[in-house]
Amino acid sequence: MSAVTPAPQPIIALVVRQNTAGVEEPVGRIVDFLRGAGYRVVFEEDTAAHLGLTGIESMSVAAIGEQAKAAVVVGGDGTMLGIARQLAKYDTPLIGINQGRLGFITDIPIQNMLPALGEILEGRSRLEKRTLLEARVMRDGEQIYCSVAVNDVVVARGTGAGMVELKLIVDGEFMYNQRSDGLIVSTPTGSTAYSLSAGGPLLHPSLQGIVLVPIAPHALSNRPIVVPDTSEIVVELVSGRDISVNFDMQTFTSLQLGDRIVISRSPNTVTFLHPHDWSYYHTLREKLHWNEYPTNDGKLK
Amino acid sequence: MSAVTPAPQPIIALVVRQNTAGVEEPVGRIVDFLRGAGYRVVFEEDTAAHLGLTGIESMSVAAIGEQAKAAVVVGGDGTMLGIARQLAKYDTPLIGINQGRLGFITDIPIQNMLPALGEILEGRSRLEKRTLLEARVMRDGEQIYCSVAVNDVVVARGTGAGMVELKLIVDGEFMYNQRSDGLIVSTPTGSTAYSLSAGGPLLHPSLQGIVLVPIAPHALSNRPIVVPDTSEIVVELVSGRDISVNFDMQTFTSLQLGDRIVISRSPNTVTFLHPHDWSYYHTLREKLHWNEYPTNDGKLK
Amino acid sequence: MSAVTPAPQPIIALVVRQNTAGVEEPVGRIVDFLRGAGYRVVFEEDTAAHLGLTGIESMSVAAIGEQAKAAVVVGGDGTMLGIARQLAKYDTPLIGINQGRLGFITDIPIQNMLPALGEILEGRSRLEKRTLLEARVMRDGEQIYCSVAVNDVVVARGTGAGMVELKLIVDGEFMYNQRSDGLIVSTPTGSTAYSLSAGGPLLHPSLQGIVLVPIAPHALSNRPIVVPDTSEIVVELVSGRDISVNFDMQTFTSLQLGDRIVISRSPNTVTFLHPHDWSYYHTLREKLHWNEYPTNDGKLK
Amino acid sequence: MSAVTPAPQPIIALVVRQNTAGVEEPVGRIVDFLRGAGYRVVFEEDTAAHLGLTGIESMSVAAIGEQAKAAVVVGGDGTMLGIARQLAKYDTPLIGINQGRLGFITDIPIQNMLPALGEILEGRSRLEKRTLLEARVMRDGEQIYCSVAVNDVVVARGTGAGMVELKLIVDGEFMYNQRSDGLIVSTPTGSTAYSLSAGGPLLHPSLQGIVLVPIAPHALSNRPIVVPDTSEIVVELVSGRDISVNFDMQTFTSLQLGDRIVISRSPNTVTFLHPHDWSYYHTLREKLHWNEYPTNDGKLK
Repeated sequence: MSAVTPAPQPIIALVVRQNTAGVEEPVGRIVDFLRGAGYRVVFEEDTAAHLGLTGIESMSVAAIGEQAKAAVVVGGDGTMLGIARQLAKYDTPLIGINQGRLGFITDIPIQNMLPALGEILEGRSRLEKRTLLEARVMRDGEQIYCSVAVNDVVVARGTGAGMVELKLIVDGEFMYNQRSDGLIVSTPTGSTAYSLSAGGPLLHPSLQGIVLVPIAPHALSNRPIVVPDTSEIVVELVSGRDISVNFDMQTFTSLQLGDRIVISRSPNTVTFLHPHDWSYYHTLREKLHWNEYPTNDGKLK
Repeated sequence: MSAVTPAPQPIIALVVRQNTAGVEEPVGRIVDFLRGAGYRVVFEEDTAAHLGLTGIESMSVAAIGEQAKAAVVVGGDGTMLGIARQLAKYDTPLIGINQGRLGFITDIPIQNMLPALGEILEGRSRLEKRTLLEARVMRDGEQIYCSVAVNDVVVARGTGAGMVELKLIVDGEFMYNQRSDGLIVSTPTGSTAYSLSAGGPLLHPSLQGIVLVPIAPHALSNRPIVVPDTSEIVVELVSGRDISVNFDMQTFTSLQLGDRIVISRSPNTVTFLHPHDWSYYHTLREKLHWNEYPTNDGKLK
Repeated sequence: MSAVTPAPQPIIALVVRQNTAGVEEPVGRIVDFLRGAGYRVVFEEDTAAHLGLTGIESMSVAAIGEQAKAAVVVGGDGTMLGIARQLAKYDTPLIGINQGRLGFITDIPIQNMLPALGEILEGRSRLEKRTLLEARVMRDGEQIYCSVAVNDVVVARGTGAGMVELKLIVDGEFMYNQRSDGLIVSTPTGSTAYSLSAGGPLLHPSLQGIVLVPIAPHALSNRPIVVPDTSEIVVELVSGRDISVNFDMQTFTSLQLGDRIVISRSPNTVTFLHPHDWSYYHTLREKLHWNEYPTNDGKLK
Repeated sequence: MSAVTPAPQPIIALVVRQNTAGVEEPVGRIVDFLRGAGYRVVFEEDTAAHLGLTGIESMSVAAIGEQAKAAVVVGGDGTMLGIARQLAKYDTPLIGINQGRLGFITDIPIQNMLPALGEILEGRSRLEKRTLLEARVMRDGEQIYCSVAVNDVVVARGTGAGMVELKLIVDGEFMYNQRSDGLIVSTPTGSTAYSLSAGGPLLHPSLQGIVLVPIAPHALSNRPIVVPDTSEIVVELVSGRDISVNFDMQTFTSLQLGDRIVISRSPNTVTFLHPHDWSYYHTLREKLHWNEYPTNDGKLK
């Protein structure tokens, strides 16, 4: 009688923050747990090289994107953002486990990781799509660079340089010339990061908007402005020195005056899998200390 | 032979700010111009009573809503907001003429009103829909008051009273308890008004969002947050004295602790007719002095 | 032989926050401790009446001011501010013990109160003088009201009323007309209270300055301004309804347009006695969570 | 009989902004006017070299500092700040004439320059002293750089680098570790410049204070703080890349982690001579548009 070919095991990829003392132990427990649950566990290849693990399968990010059912990220929000940018075009769902203090997007504490993983993989999860930005650097009508960002695209002046002057054009309409340290163009995901520090509002992840936040603008009325995420935002470099543009963690520095950075929503999105009882507002309360205000504090009004 | 009934003339309504010296002259010119263009001109009845005009037809707001092709508003943004709230359910298009300094939504200068009116009525206009808020005051499960707002719904403490504590629930999820002077829930239209003064971002009119702006919040991390305009926002009165709620210009003061204000987007919208070359960003540049920053000013960075 | 009159015992007064469950026990321990250390303990008379203590000496605030060596305040910053205002003219040193979360100015935790009291009374303390404001309400050149404030003098609009317009004159020079919800004039002590919520800067207690903070100002460039504390600040009521002025906790509401509130530093000061290792910046770090920022948080910049 | 030696003519120096088209004409009129009034006019040597003037006396900044009665600066606030830093140790009074839009500290419009100069030189002037900062860069206990600043000392991160972490110590007391784009330490003069853009308060020029303003701080409660100008402020570089320090216009970039920047008030001051009717608040109103708020603007509150 002919042998029956077993159905291939679904693949779960593991991405682990580098240089994290003691991470091998919880990672080992995750591997055991996932294997016990019937998954084929692969390590993202940089993770594998860095952890020095032997006898464990590794895969390139592209292969993970094409083959994995989900990726489990162990680390902080920075690790998550890095892999999210790379996996965006494959729409691989991401599950974030945080060793230290919880992040905005790595929301499973390591103490509770196995039950949470179990629930999520059984489908008792909350799936959330996040917007990505796509930015092209144009010079004389030619595209010279292109990248994506989960958090934000930041155009900023160089060290010790004076202000930059940036011309903003949204959907073909002139908005204004801004003189400042720079401009942050942020997704809802990025609205809790640099944008917030620079005075931007919080944007709920399901808001279809992008916020433009000037950094230390010369004109006090140059306030953050939220536009629909269907907008095309053009930032033209009018004056300034050593101007650079950042896409999350990646910096592109070879900019010249006259260059235009064209920013729009990416056709891709990032998918997060949260535990079913995850709450965005709960995360905000935790991270922003909303639930810890003093009660006896000399505030009389 | 039977008489031919002529097609009825289309109706244009006129709404004029009260107590405005010298307004009769430009209003007279508008009336003449519209009649010359084949319109039947009617005055909103409060306007008619106040102007003391004789021999001129007047109509209630309801009749205008049902019959008029458009309403021309002569005054400032306050006049426009007042009539916009009343006409919202009829979706009568509004055209704003400003006697003084241009407003955010009354954007035709009186000097240029007749050519602008001509263009708009010939169809060379830019039509813009603005979101409205609807708010219901609930007590013990019963609705005790209901109103709409073009700009904002504001829940605020009384004179000389301490802070209020408000519990915010968005789409059934607990957001946080806020201690502050109050909370502004604003449409994109309202984002250039009180919300901006209290630290809120600008929202482009086409953004499908609502911004929640705490007024002088106790916790410094209680920042403005923008949510989708499909959200249901519940503001529950937890503590405080003499709390009131404002819907644009209308105040409702008989609130008690435990009352809930339930805010959502209205099914109605407000329609503005702008000249065809109108630009939202142009208005912002004018009103917020974006185009007037100094050039020699001791700012070295 | 003539009898020797013993030196009178130095008096320590006790002021206790009202409506505080379980406060009798620690208060009893403070009384025992102070008596054991050779002090005559008296209760401020409202405290005595409220606590329902019997067989214990009480004194009016005035008598305490004239006779007590120091006053120990058990409660929060609000209790401290209330008694500080009343004792300012006597310059009685104040020691603050806080039952709950530490306050900005009630800085001894109840768990450590007896050793801390012991140290302070032995002279191992840090003495700190805080500025007070004095404000006079003038109508037609006549003073109609006068009060002092440890935190702030606040001129603000009434419930449901529109903006106020206030004319500011500093040292006889016109500053500007401000349209806003109101104005906070704050001491360094008050700079961590309402002023901070409204966007004001922190002022170190030893800074000889007063900060003027507009509340939700119409003009975005109406920023907080710090003036020397030798300044005379005049706030004239230009327009608005139901305007009131607050002096810390006390509200004066019978204001009319044209009234002027004249604010200057009081010749009196408030004296706090802190434990010798007290640090202002330590308090700020605790109260403002300066030492608790997240480390893995998706902030890439 | 012996000849009488005439009293030497008092010297007025002229400093002119470079690269300013058409400046020769008004400068020529100033020269004629001053000579006619009995002054010996000298050009600061860089100005002389740049203007290409012949037959006109020039002097080094040092010689001007030692010999001139006053220096007239023609240009913007930047030109004024540059020469003010250099002349600070001589306390040479400075008179600012502005060709374009008035500056915060170059307050005489070119249209009115001769009458204003006449008045000032006759003594009908308002003399104003401004604080200077002195900053030393210390490495391993050794001073490796030293400079002064009229506006501000700014410690900031490099292009494309992540946040800096700075440790702040004021008068020997630990304030906090700040994570941000950088820190501005500003005089009252600088409080209308970069500090204002970054969210700092205005400081009246006569306030004896220095403001510390974090730039885009990670922790939302890291607010601007004003300390007495007798304070010694130490900024220690804890982490970050490409950190630089700016003293007004001068950048020092060779910083290493562990370096300390020690900032204190300079023993020198800058002296401005204003027209007798000059008003600081008038300048603020002009520069910050305080007198131009709209009146019909849709703001209902």
